[in-house]
Amino acid sequence: MYEYLEKIKKPEDVKKLNYEELTVLASEIRDFLIRNVSKTGGHLSSNLGMVELTISLLRNFNFEEDKIVFDVGHQSYPYKILTGRREQFQTLRQYKGLSGFPKKNESKYDFFDTGHSSNSISVALGMAKARDIQIRDFHVVSVIGDGALTGGMAYEGLNDLGFSKTKMIVILNDNQMSISPNVGGLSEYLTKIRINKAYNNFKRHLQYKLDDRRGIINFLRKIKNSIRTLFVPSLFFEDLGIKYVGPIDGHNIKELDEILEKVKELSEPVVVHVITKKGKGYEHAEEKPNKFHGVAPFDVETGEILKKSEKVTYSKAFGDALIKIAKNNKDVVAITAAMAEGTGLVDFARLYPNRLFDVGIAEQHAVSFAAGLASQGLKPVFAVYSTFLQRGFDQIIEDVCLQNLPVVFMIDRAGLVGNDGETHQGIFDISYLSMIPNLTILTPKCTEEVEVLLKYALSLNRPVAIRYPRGGDKLSLKPIVKVEEYKWDIVSQGSKVAIVACGNMVQYAMMAKELLKDAKVNPMVISATFIKPLDTAMIKRLVREKYNILTLEDNIAIGGFGSLLLKSLSQLNYRGKFRMMAFKDKFIEHGSVEELYRQEKMDVESIAKTVKKLG
Amino acid sequence: MYEYLEKIKKPEDVKKLNYEELTVLASEIRDFLIRNVSKTGGHLSSNLGMVELTISLLRNFNFEEDKIVFDVGHQSYPYKILTGRREQFQTLRQYKGLSGFPKKNESKYDFFDTGHSSNSISVALGMAKARDIQIRDFHVVSVIGDGALTGGMAYEGLNDLGFSKTKMIVILNDNQMSISPNVGGLSEYLTKIRINKAYNNFKRHLQYKLDDRRGIINFLRKIKNSIRTLFVPSLFFEDLGIKYVGPIDGHNIKELDEILEKVKELSEPVVVHVITKKGKGYEHAEEKPNKFHGVAPFDVETGEILKKSEKVTYSKAFGDALIKIAKNNKDVVAITAAMAEGTGLVDFARLYPNRLFDVGIAEQHAVSFAAGLASQGLKPVFAVYSTFLQRGFDQIIEDVCLQNLPVVFMIDRAGLVGNDGETHQGIFDISYLSMIPNLTILTPKCTEEVEVLLKYALSLNRPVAIRYPRGGDKLSLKPIVKVEEYKWDIVSQGSKVAIVACGNMVQYAMMAKELLKDAKVNPMVISATFIKPLDTAMIKRLVREKYNILTLEDNIAIGGFGSLLLKSLSQLNYRGKFRMMAFKDKFIEHGSVEELYRQEKMDVESIAKTVKKLG
Repeated sequence: MYEYLEKIKKPEDVKKLNYEELTVLASEIRDFLIRNVSKTGGHLSSNLGMVELTISLLRNFNFEEDKIVFDVGHQSYPYKILTGRREQFQTLRQYKGLSGFPKKNESKYDFFDTGHSSNSISVALGMAKARDIQIRDFHVVSVIGDGALTGGMAYEGLNDLGFSKTKMIVILNDNQMSISPNVGGLSEYLTKIRINKAYNNFKRHLQYKLDDRRGIINFLRKIKNSIRTLFVPSLFFEDLGIKYVGPIDGHNIKELDEILEKVKELSEPVVVHVITKKGKGYEHAEEKPNKFHGVAPFDVETGEILKKSEKVTYSKAFGDALIKIAKNNKDVVAITAAMAEGTGLVDFARLYPNRLFDVGIAEQHAVSFAAGLASQGLKPVFAVYSTFLQRGFDQIIEDVCLQNLPVVFMIDRAGLVGNDGETHQGIFDISYLSMIPNLTILTPKCTEEVEVLLKYALSLNRPVAIRYPRGGDKLSLKPIVKVEEYKWDIVSQGSKVAIVACGNMVQYAMMAKELLKDAKVNPMVISATFIKPLDTAMIKRLVREKYNILTLEDNIAIGGFGSLLLKSLSQLNYRGKFRMMAFKDKFIEHGSVEELYRQEKMDVESIAKTVKKLG
Repeated sequence: MYEYLEKIKKPEDVKKLNYEELTVLASEIRDFLIRNVSKTGGHLSSNLGMVELTISLLRNFNFEEDKIVFDVGHQSYPYKILTGRREQFQTLRQYKGLSGFPKKNESKYDFFDTGHSSNSISVALGMAKARDIQIRDFHVVSVIGDGALTGGMAYEGLNDLGFSKTKMIVILNDNQMSISPNVGGLSEYLTKIRINKAYNNFKRHLQYKLDDRRGIINFLRKIKNSIRTLFVPSLFFEDLGIKYVGPIDGHNIKELDEILEKVKELSEPVVVHVITKKGKGYEHAEEKPNKFHGVAPFDVETGEILKKSEKVTYSKAFGDALIKIAKNNKDVVAITAAMAEGTGLVDFARLYPNRLFDVGIAEQHAVSFAAGLASQGLKPVFAVYSTFLQRGFDQIIEDVCLQNLPVVFMIDRAGLVGNDGETHQGIFDISYLSMIPNLTILTPKCTEEVEVLLKYALSLNRPVAIRYPRGGDKLSLKPIVKVEEYKWDIVSQGSKVAIVACGNMVQYAMMAKELLKDAKVNPMVISATFIKPLDTAMIKRLVREKYNILTLEDNIAIGGFGSLLLKSLSQLNYRGKFRMMAFKDKFIEHGSVEELYRQEKMDVESIAKTVKKLG
């Protein structure tokens, strides 16, 4: 089917093709990507943009020895395809199949597991320093998008790199977007470089210099001067002590080859600025790169998503609620770290452009910026994925909670997210948040409660986190209409056994109860609307009435909700049976959410079984 | 005593003095600072450098309306002195006295509580944005050192600031140091600006322009061009979209006044680059700014520390152990985030300069850089204060533990640190680390165990954290000579009650046992060398032998060691009495460590009382 793609058995096979053949190879890879991702779902736009660059990287480096670190890593599909994983590609992001991110245990050509943004320069610098200490000799390449460059961590890496002068190559893959279009001063600076009218002149100039082989130093000095003269008067990277080459057309393999061949000869760090187009070669993705950033299975011809869920997602419930609330409360503003779409803020952004702050992939800044807003009387709402909020951990403690500032954290993708796997599961937030003084933690048991909880949170004058899962509801439950301070919600009466469940897990508890209806066990089901503080009155009642207790949460057990409740029960000298269902002390790989619940023995059947034992 | 200082009753009183009088005021403030800090201990060098700048800020702004955010905040003493806190200054850092950092509840002139680095631009930008939304009118000033600028978070703030173009003033207080001399590409860039020979020309040029009042825009355009021409070809801040003015002599009040008066007229963000000298005006501090960064009480004449402790500190025990181990193991390298002195790495740095990486105030980078080193077979040891490691939380999870890489975290200042207060207490690390899969957590019960534990940690091929307190030992205890995997250490035999204590708290447990020797209670004392994983064999024995159990840790209770043990006991259907002694769910202020233990009812007497109840 694929004339050239099928010939690539080993990475070095791409070195055997001429430029005409490589052009065909590139279009074969695009076709292969589109066909496969349209079935499995996954990241498409960024990978379509990486095809030629990946080919050129494989032509110019030898990854039997050289190392490459992909920032975030969802742009590594072409690399996977060309490094021996083409035939497994149909299992992408499926349970026990290929990961959507680099994984060392998947291939010897993957050198680091990634998933979170902006760390690749740091990791690559570590590898390069190790090489120097061990007196070895290989290249280390970091591939980082301009989106990831909005994260402060990337700057920390660049700052150290420019200082230490370690030999290393940073490929800046500039597609002008993270998931959404990029923001930030540096982003505007890169645009200035790109749009300069002298660009075409530069390319001709470059060509001339490449023909004139008087050595790399001269070559780079001239490139540098020409850029400096032709494009911008100042160079960010050079200020940090790092050579800069670019911008280069990232869809021209020959041009890429010529530059990479040259920069390999350098014995100091260099940033190679490559311009690519997100979604390149697939019209639907070129038009709507956001939509095809991370996409569900879709129809290749029309670009339409196949199984459009009718369900209201928690993200949408949040976005809608915020719009309603913001209308009557001018103090409410929203913050996103480059995730307005994922977190449901697109409509809000349209309606209230001056009250939505997209700060870039910069969760640290987002949290402290929110603290600054709150210190002046505003009510900032930071909507963020559970796993990415880990980046703002210190700031939540020091800048928000220590000062008891009324920042509301809307924590999306809490619990299992499924196909994105280890680096994206939101299974730590109850643990890392419940340990922080002054923070109230809430969770809705259904999408309709999002608004009720958000309103309540905004009515308080202190920090609040509300956590909720990816997707929508499985069951229709009766939402609470008003939050009573620190009160849990009895969703279903019962006897002997009480299931105290967090958010999403209330739905699982109700399904387990349904499963048990022919058995003699009829558990009470409680929704722990307040994860912290606990409902001490209810706990006392459970102790007094001698309930056996099962806690249920989509978080790891250590430091989680069950642990909190157990501590409280211990103080009350509780003597009943107690069971905690939560994730074990390990990372959880990719797969569908339901498959993972089964694997972790947290599915409805397992819950029912445990309830029976307690009954 | 102080002719002018005593006349300053309100901040605006500094506006009434002429430049001659201000020069006297500045030297009075220095004298006052030296006299007071020599008695209370505290941060000296950075404050001596801030005297004229603080005076000028108070002359040019009106902090009844305008806001100021001090980055880190330990350079705010002159500000405290001039904003009505001079008479309380003798209580600095003492229990119930003035804080060593800005504190909103201390003065209406403090607008944000700080302590951790690099957040001031984010916080100030939040305040400025709130002002714009609320259609109010005031200035917002962030004062940030060049050290804090090595933290990526500062870059996230600058990036957003340059993009949003919000009116705000960033004072870059450039003293070429954080606590130690600064590192990083940007630091070298700032040096390039400073040492340029054209500096004096510039100053004359500037003077000329200031006399030529054709408006601020022209003025700045000319400054900019003159800087651009005379000093450096490229400007980091302007690349980010932020105006830059400087460098300015930070010890010349007149020059500062002239510049601040002008930049106040801008309606866009500006960085004012001010050069100051750490320790200015006190010869001992000018010579050794590190020593006088944070200093214990000292003799003003000689600069000698008064009560030199004879005790070996945990930091020193670590530094010495690392040197010993590194001699025979070439894979061992060390990382610090601008804290080589505090963490005990100075001698190592001298002996193995190529194996010590000071990455600047950049804990995120430090962790992932360590992961990169470890991925290539090295054994990196990252020595860091407990509270600052919070900044690398996400990276510990994603880049180290997910991949099970052998990075060793040496966590200094775990538990109470005392006089630095809320932002510096290391009371969260057991909670935020024990929730992370794959991480082994150890703690020595005495300084002599540091080496044993470090050796063991380096022998493993997985991530390990070792936590230990500020200071040294209170008691002489018999160290374990070899770590047995997951085994706790019975320090003292006993009956009925078992105290399972973490690290430092073993010493408190032994003192409590000593207190109880005339009572009938004779508790067994166990050192939980392994905080995680737990010693399950020992736990089973305690259950089997029906011990009542007391856990003891200098960490908050939620998610701490006691919670871990309780979870394990619950699974074993333990029915004995269980008590957890740990810090309550709140922040702990400044004071001496012993005062704070008493306040928290965690002192030796309180422990003894609790043991008695369990006996």
